[in-house]
Amino acid sequence: MPHKQIDDDNELVLLPLGGAGEIGMNFNAYGFGAGDEKKWIIVDCGVLFGREAATPGIDLIVPDISFLAERRDDVLGIIATHAHEDHIGAIHLLWPMLKCPVYATPFTAKLIEGKLDEAGLLGKTKLKVMPPHGKVTLGPFEIELVSVTHSIPEPNAIAIKTPLGTVVHTGDWKIDPDPVVGKKADLNRLKALGDEGVLALVCDSTNALVNGHSGSEADVKKGLTDLIGTLKGRIAVTAFASNVARLDTIARAAKAHKRQIVLVGRAMHKIVQAAKDVGYLQDFPPIVDQDDAEDIPANKVLFICTGSQGEVRAALPRIAAGEHVVKLGPGDTVIFSSRIIPGNELGIFELHNKLAALGVEILSVEDHFVHVSGHPCRDELAEMYALVRPKIAVPVHGELRHLHAHAKLARSLQVPQVVIIENGQMLKLAPGKAAVIDETPSGRVHLDGNVLVGEGLGLARTRRALSFAGLIAITVVVDEKNRIAADPGIILEGIPEPVHEAVREAVDGVLDRHNPKKDDEGDLREKVRRAARRAAEDAWGKKPVTRVEVVMV
Amino acid sequence: MPHKQIDDDNELVLLPLGGAGEIGMNFNAYGFGAGDEKKWIIVDCGVLFGREAATPGIDLIVPDISFLAERRDDVLGIIATHAHEDHIGAIHLLWPMLKCPVYATPFTAKLIEGKLDEAGLLGKTKLKVMPPHGKVTLGPFEIELVSVTHSIPEPNAIAIKTPLGTVVHTGDWKIDPDPVVGKKADLNRLKALGDEGVLALVCDSTNALVNGHSGSEADVKKGLTDLIGTLKGRIAVTAFASNVARLDTIARAAKAHKRQIVLVGRAMHKIVQAAKDVGYLQDFPPIVDQDDAEDIPANKVLFICTGSQGEVRAALPRIAAGEHVVKLGPGDTVIFSSRIIPGNELGIFELHNKLAALGVEILSVEDHFVHVSGHPCRDELAEMYALVRPKIAVPVHGELRHLHAHAKLARSLQVPQVVIIENGQMLKLAPGKAAVIDETPSGRVHLDGNVLVGEGLGLARTRRALSFAGLIAITVVVDEKNRIAADPGIILEGIPEPVHEAVREAVDGVLDRHNPKKDDEGDLREKVRRAARRAAEDAWGKKPVTRVEVVMV
Repeated sequence: MPHKQIDDDNELVLLPLGGAGEIGMNFNAYGFGAGDEKKWIIVDCGVLFGREAATPGIDLIVPDISFLAERRDDVLGIIATHAHEDHIGAIHLLWPMLKCPVYATPFTAKLIEGKLDEAGLLGKTKLKVMPPHGKVTLGPFEIELVSVTHSIPEPNAIAIKTPLGTVVHTGDWKIDPDPVVGKKADLNRLKALGDEGVLALVCDSTNALVNGHSGSEADVKKGLTDLIGTLKGRIAVTAFASNVARLDTIARAAKAHKRQIVLVGRAMHKIVQAAKDVGYLQDFPPIVDQDDAEDIPANKVLFICTGSQGEVRAALPRIAAGEHVVKLGPGDTVIFSSRIIPGNELGIFELHNKLAALGVEILSVEDHFVHVSGHPCRDELAEMYALVRPKIAVPVHGELRHLHAHAKLARSLQVPQVVIIENGQMLKLAPGKAAVIDETPSGRVHLDGNVLVGEGLGLARTRRALSFAGLIAITVVVDEKNRIAADPGIILEGIPEPVHEAVREAVDGVLDRHNPKKDDEGDLREKVRRAARRAAEDAWGKKPVTRVEVVMV
Repeated sequence: MPHKQIDDDNELVLLPLGGAGEIGMNFNAYGFGAGDEKKWIIVDCGVLFGREAATPGIDLIVPDISFLAERRDDVLGIIATHAHEDHIGAIHLLWPMLKCPVYATPFTAKLIEGKLDEAGLLGKTKLKVMPPHGKVTLGPFEIELVSVTHSIPEPNAIAIKTPLGTVVHTGDWKIDPDPVVGKKADLNRLKALGDEGVLALVCDSTNALVNGHSGSEADVKKGLTDLIGTLKGRIAVTAFASNVARLDTIARAAKAHKRQIVLVGRAMHKIVQAAKDVGYLQDFPPIVDQDDAEDIPANKVLFICTGSQGEVRAALPRIAAGEHVVKLGPGDTVIFSSRIIPGNELGIFELHNKLAALGVEILSVEDHFVHVSGHPCRDELAEMYALVRPKIAVPVHGELRHLHAHAKLARSLQVPQVVIIENGQMLKLAPGKAAVIDETPSGRVHLDGNVLVGEGLGLARTRRALSFAGLIAITVVVDEKNRIAADPGIILEGIPEPVHEAVREAVDGVLDRHNPKKDDEGDLREKVRRAARRAAEDAWGKKPVTRVEVVMV
């Protein structure tokens, strides 16, 4: 009975290729079937943003999905939990390797559509819009969306029913009793799933180090409305554009204090339009064009701006630099209705410095109740575990410090099995005890210019080396008898002037001593390279990257 | 009566060359005299640490002091307020341009001595040790040290009396009622100076955005002692080595709980030795060598480690990476008795991640009372203004956001004149109203390898460009008739493989079309450069730095 045998060999596995070790680049695959016969679904397909210091010249980083690309006929679909970049931002980059349908709720689908359009993939990709609470069956996976709350419309947890048990994959979530825009989290359905029995909870770890509760958008609404009422002069509020509830809050707070609203920054317009297109923000106050804003008295205007993270090309940083049609000055106030994403501190403080130099007052979460996180703090995590009561807890969406804190919390809540896995580790969830059963290829792939380059190929690392000590590029010209036929071409970049002469002298010395009969091209190249590098080190104390070519006349 | 005339023309000026716009690189000059006949003293001579993203390859940044270097016969001395790197770290680098005596209290002098020794300047530099509360007269300046408290032994404010009035220059300070090591701040002397009349207060702005009081080292002592008593397993505490009071606190807390002390990291040993040499830490508990530490039971040992900022070569990061003789694992605890210096977040969190992966528990100021700042919060600033009652407030030692917050506070405290100046602005303090009367050359100078290079010369900026898009270095070989005489030498670095071929083809195309009679060397170079750059951009979407040399056989 071969059929029965195959059934007996069926496994349910989780394979994270991104997000298990970083906040960003979320990519989780679930597999069901026997051995290499598994069918796969993918939950989220996001990017990680590059950082100049670590990955110079790299804006976007995506997961290495070669394992699934090789099995793409068995990949049944991508389900997007919500529309944040770290969950959908890689779809247009990785879809060509997968070519499977993409499932998302209307708002999320709207934003994915825009990305596919820009990438010229809109007609090619099957983008299937699901309603909130929608269901779809993909092979052995019965998928059900469960509404949660988060800092963007339409966040979903996903219940994945399989013959070997049910997985609840939370996506990004919090428990917001009054999310301002959209529905409350469907705690009843989560509890019902728990009653039915949940095998594994695969859950957001972002705030696993933070005690208490993340707070409600409704509290921010009160905080911002009260604060705005106390201010004279122009007000600019900067927030994450994708937080539609926050935009609504800011706009209503402005209206409550008889201020007209100006949206500043492309992303603001894009998100507000997308939200309206799918039925949100239907009574959003009228928006004044930024070019007409200077006609509005200072105490009657409120700007909603991009740039809360100090991104130099976004609205607020350009306003602060005096490079924008919108102007701020003494008597005006900027409210940062946002948190600092770790790593952005210096850029944000530089923005603060520029605003301070303009005489602008700066208000932020440091002293005012103007922001709440979209991720569950420890009390919310405890509530989720109490509702779902999984047999297995798998912390994802976090750095190792978050995953370990989350795991410790889950153990304290008496979850029978808690497993920390890293990207590329294939975790068998059933049958039997959860265990890592395979290590697949995994890693990071850089979008370098318009080319996807494996992190291991080291271009960003090579360039980082250039940034430390510059480069010496030498071309030596020989004739057909291997004699030096011309002065060498010596190009030094990023190296102080006094070092240049030392390098030239060292290279000339090697060429003067060159014995065409003794040293072949390789010997010559290596001698020149070593002499140049040593000369630079002696003169400078640093060793530039040194490359030598030999050409023949 | 020319003598009288000159007296009438005397001015007292402040010229900050560092620190007015950044936290770091503190360098303030005071001038007294007529026009260009002024005599100068310098208060502090510190470094700023380079950041990989902004200044790749640069560890140390110092102020451009060319204005004073040109007048070095009139520079009467450098007075160091205390021994932090951002106050003394540039002395050995800039002293050769100034060649004036250096004044410091014993502990500070000890650490300056070490730096001068390493730079081979020890015999040459006149280093004059002053006692706390010491006085010295340098030309028109009567200088008096006034003890304050800070996160290092022997911090001093400096009262500078001149015929045109008294300046109080605070250096770094806080009001710590129980500093654990060293004396309390001499508030009586500050008040007496205020009673005598103070023209200007030139004051630390670091915590001008922080409400309340910075807290006391004695409170940290209680917090750390209690916390350590609750822990099993090995404990490692990381703190700034220069905070001798904190090291004393940690050591005594260990002793109180019967743990032996191991110092880990070169800076720890250096500072403890320097402190003992000048009379501090006389009953510091015995120190166990790190190589003998593994013989001590886990619950009987405490490591005091460098590396609280995630510096990869410091002790704790090397322990976390498993590259150190000291090992930590499950059941062990690391206490960060330190704050996060802005910009170091990602490095510190990476350190947390590595420790979490080892199973080590991490405790920090987030949840425990294990650190206080060494700088005055707003209540302390208010107290200082109440004691000194200056006619003029000049906020220094801060970014613009700190200087503006400090200025606003000083105005609210009814200081008659509050002036924000930037590096290089010469502020006349007397006679008459305070006013900027000159802009001198100023800026940042990078210690690049072992060479001082002006920031404006742009080597770090050049290298940063290399880190974004790499470099194409091309050598074209021509004969005496300007004909192409060999294949070009083409070196590409930091550029993806598929782009190489496109660049080669483009360059070959230009060389094939080269007309020796029409295009001279400059034309040829420019055509090759443009073609290579355009080819790279077409193939890659990025424009590498492109350099071309033409050599003749």
